[in-house]
Amino acid sequence: MTSRALATLVTIPIESETAKPLIGPVPNSYSTIAVIRVVTFASMIVVNARLNPVAIAARGDEVIDFGLRRAQGIDGGLSASRAAFVGGCTATSNVLAGRLLGLPVRGTHAHSWVMAFDGEEEAFEAWAQAQPNNCVFLVDTYDTLEGVRHAAAAALRLRERGHQAIGIRLDSGDLAYLSIEARAILDEAGLPEAKIVASNDLDEHVIASLKEQGARIDAWGVGTRLVTGGDQAALGGVYKLAAVRDPGGPWRHRVKISEQAVKTSNPGVQQVRRFSGPDGFVADVIYDEEGGLDAAPLVVDPLDPTRRKRIPAGSTFEDLLVPVARGGRVVYEPPPLALAQARAKHQVSRLHPGIRRFVNPHQYPVGLALQLYELKTRLVLEARGL
Amino acid sequence: MTSRALATLVTIPIESETAKPLIGPVPNSYSTIAVIRVVTFASMIVVNARLNPVAIAARGDEVIDFGLRRAQGIDGGLSASRAAFVGGCTATSNVLAGRLLGLPVRGTHAHSWVMAFDGEEEAFEAWAQAQPNNCVFLVDTYDTLEGVRHAAAAALRLRERGHQAIGIRLDSGDLAYLSIEARAILDEAGLPEAKIVASNDLDEHVIASLKEQGARIDAWGVGTRLVTGGDQAALGGVYKLAAVRDPGGPWRHRVKISEQAVKTSNPGVQQVRRFSGPDGFVADVIYDEEGGLDAAPLVVDPLDPTRRKRIPAGSTFEDLLVPVARGGRVVYEPPPLALAQARAKHQVSRLHPGIRRFVNPHQYPVGLALQLYELKTRLVLEARGL
Repeated sequence: MTSRALATLVTIPIESETAKPLIGPVPNSYSTIAVIRVVTFASMIVVNARLNPVAIAARGDEVIDFGLRRAQGIDGGLSASRAAFVGGCTATSNVLAGRLLGLPVRGTHAHSWVMAFDGEEEAFEAWAQAQPNNCVFLVDTYDTLEGVRHAAAAALRLRERGHQAIGIRLDSGDLAYLSIEARAILDEAGLPEAKIVASNDLDEHVIASLKEQGARIDAWGVGTRLVTGGDQAALGGVYKLAAVRDPGGPWRHRVKISEQAVKTSNPGVQQVRRFSGPDGFVADVIYDEEGGLDAAPLVVDPLDPTRRKRIPAGSTFEDLLVPVARGGRVVYEPPPLALAQARAKHQVSRLHPGIRRFVNPHQYPVGLALQLYELKTRLVLEARGL
Repeated sequence: MTSRALATLVTIPIESETAKPLIGPVPNSYSTIAVIRVVTFASMIVVNARLNPVAIAARGDEVIDFGLRRAQGIDGGLSASRAAFVGGCTATSNVLAGRLLGLPVRGTHAHSWVMAFDGEEEAFEAWAQAQPNNCVFLVDTYDTLEGVRHAAAAALRLRERGHQAIGIRLDSGDLAYLSIEARAILDEAGLPEAKIVASNDLDEHVIASLKEQGARIDAWGVGTRLVTGGDQAALGGVYKLAAVRDPGGPWRHRVKISEQAVKTSNPGVQQVRRFSGPDGFVADVIYDEEGGLDAAPLVVDPLDPTRRKRIPAGSTFEDLLVPVARGGRVVYEPPPLALAQARAKHQVSRLHPGIRRFVNPHQYPVGLALQLYELKTRLVLEARGL
């Protein structure tokens, strides 16, 4: 799925939800900017983790959020780690996020741990003493495969003391070759249960390629690309006023005109209805709550109104927007993060595989209900005096 | 200048400064991660604002940070606005940053202000009443040039009441054409002093192109591209341990080996010396403070050791690294932001124009002092048993 389609998905709730509490004539731009920032950033990271990239490429493997040192801003990476978890990451290396948000924490020592000692074997032994039940040895400070052997020896000594090492981490070099060699060394040492974690500028494409090459990697530590959006660092959600009313009065529709069709806003007190068929999601339809929606609605692509799709009558559906604030008061209780994660996972599973692929993905249908499209067209033409 | 060169500039202080306070055998990875995050993110934004992009393209014009709604994380965009100002932005639309950091604040109303009223003229008049001394009318809600005429009328009414409108903002469409037409309308209305502010997914390339086309734009509002890094959302600064010592003992050098030469770390208690000639900066030389530096040092490119450069004896220089924390205590007083901005501006002016251009820029020389290069080579070979 392209991010353009997702941007559409994300903008709608903002427009609709912020339209509702507006009673007076003066919208509060400051609070809408805050909403845009928080919603679009979190959505982008969720999408990164769950949809577009890494979790799909690593199908079934653990994907760990390793992004703390690259998360922008100065909020301790909390918003990024939270969103990455909702998007499907199984754990985070962000210890503060683990404590404050209850996320599972995973990680290894730094190269500097090894370099602070006079030798790697000494360093691994000290780490095993310090963290007997949480040992993932980072093996590439000097010579990677020699490091794997040192880690295996430390793991065997740990076993004698009644503990089990989790495994090793590879952070540089040819991860396909090194993981296959490392697997052989660990198996020969009698450590078939030891996991191999990989990191090093990973993204969905690198992971897919490594899996194709038969890399023996059990868990993927993904950082920069996950928590910053990589080459797409922002998701273009916006706020536009869609309707106003005086206290007790009726809603009056509003539309912003633009020479760029994509920037002409949608009027109305909007809701988004997601329709499902037996094989998954069929389309998302934006409609005006004031006018309601037909039983078998016709969906119009606002950028090419000749592209239309009829939703079969009797399709199951869900309305996606729920009020978060009314009259300046929060009226929404967010679900536990594990539930949000499960919902995101389920929703993605209902998208056609063609939409989820990386190369030339099929575009998920998102459009306006015919009535809303006609209303919008009429208002735009009126505003242009045509 | 490529970001690779800048990444090199940024990583060094981290490596050196964090090496110094390490006395015991256990580096604190958590605090180094925080330092990496804060330093690399701020550096990236400063670079965006000052060097690579927008301020240069807009040479002499005002560049305003409009990035609040796209700044990642949830710190209120404060770190992004702060860094954008240091990098050369003249003001910010981030009101909180204005209040907390003392930055000049500039901005306009939103489209929603206009849409909350029944007509644009009524909306502009209300804005003029509310902000008589801070009026920049956003003119593209419905018809841009009609909007300019409405804004001019509101400005003339303001003048009758003894106030002066600042100007207008264009936020969509063909900014070259519209700014030229808008300039003519404003001038004919007797408002030659009214400024034209432009926004709409601006970056250095769009700004340069608009200036070439003769756009009549006085100030540029830059958002997403400025505060997120756009297609380069992270600057690859890292932390590597470079030296250790026991309390009272001598420094012992450390080097991390990698199959990727660029990931092999530099040993030593590092300092960076920036040399100047009559025409500007000549090179940055990383050296080991324990060994000192020759009067006419030879600089070696660590990725191609046959590329070397002799610094003329008697060149002026400045050592760039200053201690920020020692023994867990802050020992550094940051300069006022205006001074940091002036320093950044001056430093950029000392770079050769070939380094500052956007297309195929010349690379600024950053390398190791010969002694440090030889030390590093010896340590790597020793570690590899060669």
